[in-house]
Amino acid sequence: MAMRIVVDAMGSDTAPVPEVAGVVEGAKDFDGEVILVGDEALLQKELEQHPKRSNVRVVHASEAISMHDAPVNAVRQKKDSSLLVGLRLVKEGEADAFVSAGNTGAVMVGALTVLGKIKGVNRPAICQALPNATGRVTILDLGANASCTAHMLCEFAEMGMAYSQYMLGVEHPRVGLLNIGEEESKGHQVAKDVHRSLSAMQHVNFIGNVEPKAVFQGGADVVVCDGFIGNLFLKTSEAAAGFLGKLVREKFESSNMNKLGAVLARKALQELKATVDPNESHGAPLLGVNGVVLILHGSCNQNAVCNAIAGARHALDNRLNQHIGEFIQELRKFEASQEEGAASSEVSAEPDVTAGEGI
Amino acid sequence: MAMRIVVDAMGSDTAPVPEVAGVVEGAKDFDGEVILVGDEALLQKELEQHPKRSNVRVVHASEAISMHDAPVNAVRQKKDSSLLVGLRLVKEGEADAFVSAGNTGAVMVGALTVLGKIKGVNRPAICQALPNATGRVTILDLGANASCTAHMLCEFAEMGMAYSQYMLGVEHPRVGLLNIGEEESKGHQVAKDVHRSLSAMQHVNFIGNVEPKAVFQGGADVVVCDGFIGNLFLKTSEAAAGFLGKLVREKFESSNMNKLGAVLARKALQELKATVDPNESHGAPLLGVNGVVLILHGSCNQNAVCNAIAGARHALDNRLNQHIGEFIQELRKFEASQEEGAASSEVSAEPDVTAGEGI
Repeated sequence: MAMRIVVDAMGSDTAPVPEVAGVVEGAKDFDGEVILVGDEALLQKELEQHPKRSNVRVVHASEAISMHDAPVNAVRQKKDSSLLVGLRLVKEGEADAFVSAGNTGAVMVGALTVLGKIKGVNRPAICQALPNATGRVTILDLGANASCTAHMLCEFAEMGMAYSQYMLGVEHPRVGLLNIGEEESKGHQVAKDVHRSLSAMQHVNFIGNVEPKAVFQGGADVVVCDGFIGNLFLKTSEAAAGFLGKLVREKFESSNMNKLGAVLARKALQELKATVDPNESHGAPLLGVNGVVLILHGSCNQNAVCNAIAGARHALDNRLNQHIGEFIQELRKFEASQEEGAASSEVSAEPDVTAGEGI
Repeated sequence: MAMRIVVDAMGSDTAPVPEVAGVVEGAKDFDGEVILVGDEALLQKELEQHPKRSNVRVVHASEAISMHDAPVNAVRQKKDSSLLVGLRLVKEGEADAFVSAGNTGAVMVGALTVLGKIKGVNRPAICQALPNATGRVTILDLGANASCTAHMLCEFAEMGMAYSQYMLGVEHPRVGLLNIGEEESKGHQVAKDVHRSLSAMQHVNFIGNVEPKAVFQGGADVVVCDGFIGNLFLKTSEAAAGFLGKLVREKFESSNMNKLGAVLARKALQELKATVDPNESHGAPLLGVNGVVLILHGSCNQNAVCNAIAGARHALDNRLNQHIGEFIQELRKFEASQEEGAASSEVSAEPDVTAGEGI
């Protein structure tokens, strides 16, 4: 059966403009269907601005969850929000994947509530494949869980390995733990425990602690960290890059470069922007939930929506979630062999409702 | 009496090359004295490569502490190391300030052991004035204390305010708490406690949580955080900037820019590098110890050493430590007024010997 991808049309800061434009673009040359969920009248009007596509459909939702809504309350109260209507389409088998640029915490709570988790997973994590010197590095958690146990970080390693291998084609992904020093002694107790566990797992290609520099230079394929650290890493990287990019532009604008040189410099900077622009990635998957869920920046543009549709297709084509389930079973086998079965029951199965950082 | 500044000549990765070159440069047009501490024969030989300066003196130290030495053991055992000999010169009134590119943890433990703390300070912090869109932002702690109590973070705010005001000339520095969201509810319990305390201090211009983007855009003058977060922020910023800088260079080298354009582009990039190069800053002061102590990157160059000498002169000229003492007394007064005197005794006066992250 043809693939059907749901896009929450009411999520982004300028919704539904980028959602509708991105869906129309993403539906081109796609033999499946894309379903826009949101205020039907608004969406039909917005769709008139674009070429008509026979494989774009609108499903009405009378409510929208805003960035200011408290995630748990919003999910409980706004049953007819675009977020929950969209997720229910996936749950009920009417669709195969879900994309949203909305309130990250609400997407997380909603996905956990409606779709549940892949068998064996305790906590989902937000993941992203960030550009680096050698290609892309898979990093998680980027904000779903503000604080994490060692067991959760081991799960993130398994899910990140599945992503790296089946989404990016990395054969034996090198797994690193984000830290401020390479020495095993660095960081808090949880970091030390994870270090010991991952080192003992024969099926994990664990390379130890990695510093931010190594992450950007290509020293690891998968990088695990708790959601606070990951969110800080992501936001700091974006902020530093934004600051430097601004300085570069100003410098070139103020320099006495001749006309042709200035044109070429501007072109080079634009090409470069595409390399590091998060809108040019496949979106940030919420790994571990029982369905393909991709999260976008609230400030995303139509390219981001179009690329996320491609990302969802890629995840479905490559049976990402099935592989995540298999990898998690490997972790369970390891734990059983270590007779540390108690560890998994220590982790609450409840979502971390205070978390869900915007990415 | 003329100023005397001690430089640990055995600290950097390529010691004593950048130390000697930087000292010779920094001693030019300086009416005080610069004292190089280290292996005398080695230093005299290295000095022969440079113009002779009458105000550069060598003090012999038979040992050196390496980056791989455990800080506490090294300070206990290597009594005749350049680090300890240099710090003792300051302690004994033979010198006024100390600069080192050596093992950060050892500098911290050594400074605490030999110099002690400014009256009222519980924990010193590593500070830096990082370039941002509007000038420089004072950020601390960058790695002296891996985990911090709310009380410690309040002390960092006071010390950072003194630095911002007396080193950078900011009148009423805006103080922010580094976090992954602006909302007061973000982050761990310590963050929430600091938020409440700083909000209640009338003498502190507290603006609440600041995200990395605001730090780079100039949204705060002083940014406080624990040493793990600060070290991660610093390393991530440097790594992201390094990655982007590399991409920019490669892009320009591969583009079909004409010759004049390429020359001007290279010049613009070099100027830009100077703006963000940590070697071009005044070094990272260890605030709170009873003496002016500046820490440099192990990979620093001679400019960094020369600039740190200028930084030490500036700190002495502006009586930085005296002002830190005054600001800390303001905190004490606030605490007394809150009848929360118990808070200060909760904090151990022992140095956090597991910390001391390289910067």
